[in-house]
Amino acid sequence: MDAQSLQKLAKLVRYYILISTSKAGSGHPTSSLSATDLMATLLFGGAFHADLSNPEYPNNDRLIFSKGHAAPLLYALYAAAGAVSEEELLTLRTFGSRLEGHPARVFPYTEVPTGSLGQGLSVGAGMALNAKLNKLVYRTYVLLGDSEMAEGSVWEALQIASYYKLDNLVGILDVNRLGQRGETMYGHDCAAFERRIAVFGWNTLVIDGHSFEEITKAYQAAASSDRPTMVIAKTLKGKGVSFIEDKDGWHGKALGKEDLERALKELGDVDHTVRGTMSAPERIELQRTSVLPVPEPSYDLGSMVSTRKAYGNALVRLFPKFPDMVVLDAEVGNSTYAENFKKAHPERFFEMFIAEQNMVGVAMGLARRGKLPFVSTFAAFFTRAFDQIRMSQYAGVGIKFAGSHAGVAIGEDGASQMALEDIAMFRALLGSTVLYPSDAASSEKLTEEAAQCPGIVYIRTSRNDLPVLYDARETFPIGGSKILRQSEKDVVAVISAGVTLHEALAAQEELSKEGIAVRIIDLYSIKPVDEKTLKNTARSVKAIVVVEDHFAEGGIADAVRSALASLDASRSGLSENLSVPIHSLAVRKIPKSAGSKELLDYEEISKSAIISKIKELAVRI
Amino acid sequence: MDAQSLQKLAKLVRYYILISTSKAGSGHPTSSLSATDLMATLLFGGAFHADLSNPEYPNNDRLIFSKGHAAPLLYALYAAAGAVSEEELLTLRTFGSRLEGHPARVFPYTEVPTGSLGQGLSVGAGMALNAKLNKLVYRTYVLLGDSEMAEGSVWEALQIASYYKLDNLVGILDVNRLGQRGETMYGHDCAAFERRIAVFGWNTLVIDGHSFEEITKAYQAAASSDRPTMVIAKTLKGKGVSFIEDKDGWHGKALGKEDLERALKELGDVDHTVRGTMSAPERIELQRTSVLPVPEPSYDLGSMVSTRKAYGNALVRLFPKFPDMVVLDAEVGNSTYAENFKKAHPERFFEMFIAEQNMVGVAMGLARRGKLPFVSTFAAFFTRAFDQIRMSQYAGVGIKFAGSHAGVAIGEDGASQMALEDIAMFRALLGSTVLYPSDAASSEKLTEEAAQCPGIVYIRTSRNDLPVLYDARETFPIGGSKILRQSEKDVVAVISAGVTLHEALAAQEELSKEGIAVRIIDLYSIKPVDEKTLKNTARSVKAIVVVEDHFAEGGIADAVRSALASLDASRSGLSENLSVPIHSLAVRKIPKSAGSKELLDYEEISKSAIISKIKELAVRI
Repeated sequence: MDAQSLQKLAKLVRYYILISTSKAGSGHPTSSLSATDLMATLLFGGAFHADLSNPEYPNNDRLIFSKGHAAPLLYALYAAAGAVSEEELLTLRTFGSRLEGHPARVFPYTEVPTGSLGQGLSVGAGMALNAKLNKLVYRTYVLLGDSEMAEGSVWEALQIASYYKLDNLVGILDVNRLGQRGETMYGHDCAAFERRIAVFGWNTLVIDGHSFEEITKAYQAAASSDRPTMVIAKTLKGKGVSFIEDKDGWHGKALGKEDLERALKELGDVDHTVRGTMSAPERIELQRTSVLPVPEPSYDLGSMVSTRKAYGNALVRLFPKFPDMVVLDAEVGNSTYAENFKKAHPERFFEMFIAEQNMVGVAMGLARRGKLPFVSTFAAFFTRAFDQIRMSQYAGVGIKFAGSHAGVAIGEDGASQMALEDIAMFRALLGSTVLYPSDAASSEKLTEEAAQCPGIVYIRTSRNDLPVLYDARETFPIGGSKILRQSEKDVVAVISAGVTLHEALAAQEELSKEGIAVRIIDLYSIKPVDEKTLKNTARSVKAIVVVEDHFAEGGIADAVRSALASLDASRSGLSENLSVPIHSLAVRKIPKSAGSKELLDYEEISKSAIISKIKELAVRI
Repeated sequence: MDAQSLQKLAKLVRYYILISTSKAGSGHPTSSLSATDLMATLLFGGAFHADLSNPEYPNNDRLIFSKGHAAPLLYALYAAAGAVSEEELLTLRTFGSRLEGHPARVFPYTEVPTGSLGQGLSVGAGMALNAKLNKLVYRTYVLLGDSEMAEGSVWEALQIASYYKLDNLVGILDVNRLGQRGETMYGHDCAAFERRIAVFGWNTLVIDGHSFEEITKAYQAAASSDRPTMVIAKTLKGKGVSFIEDKDGWHGKALGKEDLERALKELGDVDHTVRGTMSAPERIELQRTSVLPVPEPSYDLGSMVSTRKAYGNALVRLFPKFPDMVVLDAEVGNSTYAENFKKAHPERFFEMFIAEQNMVGVAMGLARRGKLPFVSTFAAFFTRAFDQIRMSQYAGVGIKFAGSHAGVAIGEDGASQMALEDIAMFRALLGSTVLYPSDAASSEKLTEEAAQCPGIVYIRTSRNDLPVLYDARETFPIGGSKILRQSEKDVVAVISAGVTLHEALAAQEELSKEGIAVRIIDLYSIKPVDEKTLKNTARSVKAIVVVEDHFAEGGIADAVRSALASLDASRSGLSENLSVPIHSLAVRKIPKSAGSKELLDYEEISKSAIISKIKELAVRI
């Protein structure tokens, strides 16, 4: 398509941007207008290969709007391509519309939801990595804003793309100078961006982002680069409408009625009949991967194995059954045992170095292209990527997160390495699954459950070697629990998981000698939680004690209380069963650096603390 | 001090590192040994000015171990300075010792706890910024590891230090080539680091990290640079002990008895009497800042003001009373209203651009040097900095976090911009305070409470204009709540805060016309929570309904259930009061992009949803 036709299309796209945002009464027209020429040329100038009628076609080029607030542009482009009607454009930002304020998966051309800035390039790197892995020729394009370049996660993505030589990845940096509240750090200094990006190992091209010729050439040059390419485009925010062009104070504002009229007048005649077409993707023979049965895990009852090690074993064992598996780790694979998988399948293991945000973004990209990513690091360090994890809940992808080194039980390394907020973090997410194995056998089985479960799954593993409690025939369905000790005389139930479950078992043994009968429940599935068992338990004991190697808020105790409150309230009338008090033993003091057992005692979540609490209760019962 | 004396001291420091880690049986001797010459020269070679007897002296140079796992080196240095005995060194990593596995505040020379990598340079930038603000001459040094350079947060810090021209900040990059599980991304390629760091606007010096002469010269050069300086030092992991030097597989491992003997033999004669001395800091006249009374806020009852706007107003109003205040924002000051403070006190406002991790790190540095930082962005984007926030809980500093744009009530911008996990995140932290004002008056007062409250405080503000509920005389103590509607006939209590509290008030009004008496509680303090009022409420109604514009887990409902469960359990015997069921109305579907009211309805947390729920309950009561 020649420059004149592109010009025509770009004008139509601008028209769409203006009318849709003005109709909505909000949105980001100026941020959309600056990137219009860049994007119209990309999609319709020949560079972009995709089957419009099949957005999920595996060999389509991918386009990620990392600057998600330019969503009106995305929709306008697909309107110009004929996939969205002008009528639908006018539903922008209204209830039930596919056209949300920031791209959401409900719009079929949204690769991943964006809007939290600085995440798109990582996702793009994941998609580019997927192409390399599957030997597909599709290219991945990421539209970036200049403000979001301040996010460290972008530099993590730049560095990993260079490390993995992702010559099939193209960033398009829309340097429109203005952020939300004024000029960005570097304004229109494209060279400042170029120097930084080039030194990270990228091919860089600085262009006029409103010259169709320069843009077209840039995409051609990118296609023949042996490195990832960043097209750094000097643009004007609000380009095409003189009175908002390059003007401060117009971020995230739609034009009012009069301003819109002025703008449209200025835009002049718009050809509503012109339609952009994309180049056809290369047709490929899709490879079928065969799913093979896998053996059961096998651990000797009572033998000492950490749940993190069992997780690593499970990855290797399960791969034939889940051939889409890929494994990512943040330079701690020898601690999380992800290295087991690396040794077995080095081509499907991606070292992400100590850059957790990018790791999760890359996993999101891989997952959107059909992979089943298992992502691991110390559980504490997933906090680093909470924003990416949060966004993944809207991406409709099922990343499996395995966090090792849970709780104070790790001992001497001290507080910085202890995950004590991780259950709260993962539990808060919509539709997430939170699993917490207490032995190697259940860790293996829960890793398998995670692989089968759609959506976000978090597996919390422990550093410590723990005795194997279950044999290989035992199943661990998500939403279940295991009653490990019970009798008709039970007065107290102890609910726990992980290291503290073993403390509870030891407490039970000692108390039983003193004639105090205690029920012990392994709550390996914290979310969803086994409401039925918890309810039956609440009916049959006088008190519940929840013990967890986690801070007091947001963890297992909250899950148990929530399950009982809602159950009783919703199904059984108003007051049945709620008479059972729920006590929480959790981490309530700043942890120290010391032996595991000492710290469990110090935090009052050890065997002796459980015994004390139960004896204190027994007096009152 | 000459090279020979430094050599002697360094040998003693190496000895200390080896014996302390071997005694502990764990720790990171090799990561400590690589940086020994760098640090011994820094502290004892003349560059470092500090009063050893007064670690908090405001004009001391600061030293942050961003590579916190080199803690044995930190302790060994202060032992060589005479501040730690050899006996105490042997308590490393034992219960109650000041010498934790990673630096903790219990050790008086720890600036901030480290161990989650990639955070120290941000903290250093905060301390350097503090020196600039207070016109102090102290310099801030940050020891970095090469592995942690992969963290994007480091690049955020590099960029902001350059932007703020922090010529008083010196990074010391210990390029020892080896990470935890093998070689880092760039190995011993110091030039790769230099190119990247230089292009971010830093003065860079590549040196042999084991040459006392080169190290000394580097610190001298740094002192006269007009830019922040990074000393990039090629070192050997395990330096000084041939059989672990530059060898893979020795990360985080202490030498066993035999290896230790070999190592000490190799080290040769150690002079145990030598002591390092630091240069004296410049003595300064400390400026007293006067604390002035401030006026009460004033809003007309019923007038429409957003709580975020009132937060911005409060910052300006309160400054005379809290003259240590500084305000940081992540390029959304016009949305969070932090810009009000910027306009009033531009020199105390720090634009942190869109880089939340670094913003929190900088705030940690400022807080450790006596400032009272208020840090703001969209509440959703604090998830970006969860790891830094997590570490700040161990830093003994009281950062005040203000997150705007809470919940689905923000409307059209959609899910990516909606904070729905923020309460869960901040509530999980140890000793944190979580506040959620529902009107402008309480937002002002709670901002004042936050300023007075030690520790982490989170203030959740709303985008929407809301009617003013309280007058200026009302007080809002932390841990309190407000009963807004009550009668003796109340059958249900609705507990809420923020936008949904107004929905509850509207529901109450309508229900009262139908003869259904409902109590309404403004739970403005979610943590600590008003157990007394909640308990009294539980005693006097038949059901509690918690309504929150937050996901169902980890938020207000969990706080309410937790308060009632623990109260009843711990103080009133086993079964009193727990008969009241607690219903949770919360965000349970992926939010859309639409009007605020529509979304509240869609998520069933609106007036009509509250009415439905209460009527459903009333039938059963």
